[in-house]
Amino acid sequence: MEYSKNFYQIKSNSEIFDRINAEREEIGYYNLPYQDTAEIKDYAQSINKKHIVVLGIGGSSLGARAIYEFLLSSNNYTKDLLFLETIDPLKIKLCLKKVDLNDAQFVVISKSGNTIETLSLFKYLNSLVEINSTNCTIISETKSNLTQFANDNNIKSFDLAEDIGGRFSVFSVVGLVPLAMVGVDIDNLLNGCKRVADSFFEQTSYYKPIIRKARFLVENKNRFNINVVFSYSSLLESFNKWYVQLWAESLGKININGTRQALTPVGLVGPVDQHSFLQMIMDGVRDKTVTFIKINDLKDSSSIPKDTANKFDGLACGYAEGYSFNDLLNMQADATIQSIEEQDDIPCDVISIRTVDEYNIAKIMFSYQLLVSCIGAFLQINTYDQPGVEYGKINLAEKFQR
Amino acid sequence: MEYSKNFYQIKSNSEIFDRINAEREEIGYYNLPYQDTAEIKDYAQSINKKHIVVLGIGGSSLGARAIYEFLLSSNNYTKDLLFLETIDPLKIKLCLKKVDLNDAQFVVISKSGNTIETLSLFKYLNSLVEINSTNCTIISETKSNLTQFANDNNIKSFDLAEDIGGRFSVFSVVGLVPLAMVGVDIDNLLNGCKRVADSFFEQTSYYKPIIRKARFLVENKNRFNINVVFSYSSLLESFNKWYVQLWAESLGKININGTRQALTPVGLVGPVDQHSFLQMIMDGVRDKTVTFIKINDLKDSSSIPKDTANKFDGLACGYAEGYSFNDLLNMQADATIQSIEEQDDIPCDVISIRTVDEYNIAKIMFSYQLLVSCIGAFLQINTYDQPGVEYGKINLAEKFQR
Repeated sequence: MEYSKNFYQIKSNSEIFDRINAEREEIGYYNLPYQDTAEIKDYAQSINKKHIVVLGIGGSSLGARAIYEFLLSSNNYTKDLLFLETIDPLKIKLCLKKVDLNDAQFVVISKSGNTIETLSLFKYLNSLVEINSTNCTIISETKSNLTQFANDNNIKSFDLAEDIGGRFSVFSVVGLVPLAMVGVDIDNLLNGCKRVADSFFEQTSYYKPIIRKARFLVENKNRFNINVVFSYSSLLESFNKWYVQLWAESLGKININGTRQALTPVGLVGPVDQHSFLQMIMDGVRDKTVTFIKINDLKDSSSIPKDTANKFDGLACGYAEGYSFNDLLNMQADATIQSIEEQDDIPCDVISIRTVDEYNIAKIMFSYQLLVSCIGAFLQINTYDQPGVEYGKINLAEKFQR
Repeated sequence: MEYSKNFYQIKSNSEIFDRINAEREEIGYYNLPYQDTAEIKDYAQSINKKHIVVLGIGGSSLGARAIYEFLLSSNNYTKDLLFLETIDPLKIKLCLKKVDLNDAQFVVISKSGNTIETLSLFKYLNSLVEINSTNCTIISETKSNLTQFANDNNIKSFDLAEDIGGRFSVFSVVGLVPLAMVGVDIDNLLNGCKRVADSFFEQTSYYKPIIRKARFLVENKNRFNINVVFSYSSLLESFNKWYVQLWAESLGKININGTRQALTPVGLVGPVDQHSFLQMIMDGVRDKTVTFIKINDLKDSSSIPKDTANKFDGLACGYAEGYSFNDLLNMQADATIQSIEEQDDIPCDVISIRTVDEYNIAKIMFSYQLLVSCIGAFLQINTYDQPGVEYGKINLAEKFQR
């Protein structure tokens, strides 16, 4: 009698660490912090268009958007960055209304080069304005038809390495090229990544919190099958979407024992979702872990004015007058955290981002990638593939061939 | 020996219907389809500002935003509608950049009149531009301090009935007043509501699908604790957010037996989330139901051009050329639906919206309100309160008093 199955078991932290360390040979994202950015920066500086328009969907747009929308309101970028990531015709028109097509650089991003949404948008845009070597940049795998198209038409292309999956590609050319074009300091992004990667692989500061959190989530996955990220700033709304993709597409898998796995991500924004989803966390079934993300210093001093003219005497919440919105936001976060901690049986942790800059957003995003890799290793799944999204593509192609 | 508890049991459909019917006496939203809109329309027509700025959070903004963003791209509204629903200072500034404050009408919405975010924003705005009877409208309960403030300052106010909760208020003055101001046909909205309400209470067309779906979700709540709405159009992105609030805040409750209940909502947008969350639905744990929402006719004929110049010969997906984006979108929806149906064990249903107009968006929103009421009745919870969000408010007030 022989068993060929490796029945499910939680490995030791050090075994998981060894596995992740070994993955560095095969999985490209781990090494991105150490890349040379000179070519990207030189090229980005040569682009003088007012609008940078990314054509890309999923992993080809979510990461750069998360970073751009985090940084946007505290920087005076002279260029716009827009993302055409849907094929919804009404939405495309609404988006293009904001763009002078003759003063735009189109960055076409598709890892495989075969993404139907991106290629269809590309052809549609070409019917509005001729796309050629003067207004287009292509990012794809070296071997793809799209890179071949770039070469044939003398269009600048950047190669995306095959061992970097879409949802782990934010710090590759996929994210860095468009971000550099609008003026984001991409070296400071990579500094943030390095800080986390170095300490994780040296097993110093970032190592323990990441591996322990991964272990906790896996050990309790049947009781707490939903993982809420509650970000206390609208600046993190796109970060939340990036988190949802990273988590869902990496961790929704059948593992080596043939068992279905799913830690389901939910992204919330405070204080808005205090008036919504919070009720379910507080009084509903205890099936959720909650991670709060706070920004300590928004670098903004605007405040709720003191009512010196006594105009608002009769209204409530006078106690908030004189406080900055930054303080109010963080006091709201603290009040919500306190409410949840008082429940005793809701697993909860808090991540503080120091301030709004490249270094700090990169740190949290790189940490989340490492966390997902660790969870995947504990679950004994392939964290980096996505077989479940392929069925729909095959069904779609068949519908066209009827 | 006596038991005082009503141990959990699924009631019959007709008992639930009787309970919902009885709720019409106490819960205001059921009767909103039959209200007289003359005063709202007259007042809205008298407002000639370029920008309508809603100050409100949660139930005070999500419903109107869902309808406005659904209709926006297929209508030529001459006024803007903006929502200030966060206290994030950087986000506020970004939003106000788009507004000429001297050509704006501020609609301040708070049911209780005590919402700290809304009142703080109100005071902040007043420091930028004087707010008075010429540029302000207030929507609140009759008895609130905010309504009193309106009266004292000769500001026009609309009364929100006490028996209408925030998340069920989209078809009350909360939604109708700002929507009418930008030119939305609010009577056609109410026609859509009436169509659904009439047939539900007459137990004709809409009755069975709603009560049966509610029953299915409750009977299987322990196996399928996550309810995904997968909307195949970016026009429904804000509808999804409205759905999440309605569902989470209504259904995350402790029931009459002291048992925690939670059907957790997730909102997805296709085809974008095909490249993300779909993987988890397909290969992950079978803990999700999926409802697809499609729009049959987007009233837009833009299409993927035929490549007559053979410019794109080498690229993939040539088969999509000549198709409209509308068709491609719906074929993508159908391909995804087919993939999920082929799995056999994922509960799945499809809602088709005929076209992009007031009547059709109101129908689906009113149906969802009825569905939530039915689920709440089956679960034996109070669908209409939100005790769990009050703790945080108390904690916050205490932090200020330290």
